[in-house]
Amino acid sequence: MAGMGHPARAIILFGHGSRDPAWRRPMEDVARRIAATSRDVAVRCAYLELDPPDFASCVRELVAGGVTEISVVPMFIGMGRHVREDLPQLVGAARDEHGVRITQRDSVGEDGRVLDLIARICLE
Amino acid sequence: MAGMGHPARAIILFGHGSRDPAWRRPMEDVARRIAATSRDVAVRCAYLELDPPDFASCVRELVAGGVTEISVVPMFIGMGRHVREDLPQLVGAARDEHGVRITQRDSVGEDGRVLDLIARICLE
Repeated sequence: MAGMGHPARAIILFGHGSRDPAWRRPMEDVARRIAATSRDVAVRCAYLELDPPDFASCVRELVAGGVTEISVVPMFIGMGRHVREDLPQLVGAARDEHGVRITQRDSVGEDGRVLDLIARICLE
Repeated sequence: MAGMGHPARAIILFGHGSRDPAWRRPMEDVARRIAATSRDVAVRCAYLELDPPDFASCVRELVAGGVTEISVVPMFIGMGRHVREDLPQLVGAARDEHGVRITQRDSVGEDGRVLDLIARICLE
């Protein structure tokens, strides 16, 4: 049941994962910024491989905490196999397992504002 | 020799590469935005694997065109082995080969403005 401290909505930042522990830092930083901005939504990072938690465990933990609606943001600049094939499969399996609403959003690199900002930073 | 249409400075956007041809689109989009903003700098995309051109070929082409100073921006959100080990090695080898100034900048995911924008997009 959703109540104070248990939002019904969640955002999962989905990344590749890496053997390098510093690799996660930017994703965790985004998660902290979201958590600092909104208390109405739970935010988690989940990884395709090499880093815990994996996507299925992350969804399981959120659903156990009362979450019924999950938005998944792929933290990839380019959309390749991981975003077009692996992630939709994980999302479909989690939907089937828990019966909650899970929406896969576009990769961050599909947003023109991100590309525009990166272009401006490159020129600094 | 640098002249009109042959800038002495260049930016290389460095990415992983993918079998999926659509994967390159955001990087190429950033390159187009840079090219549309500044004519004083040449801009190229180069890839670690799977997509051409590789880093060494890209530097060779730029140097042949009169470029003497190259800034490399890793188009990665997280900095793992590819950015901490593979790219510095490629940069070092290209410096040794051509004697031009090549600077490796931080990954785009190290910039707080990028992380802030991504956090805001996640909450939309």
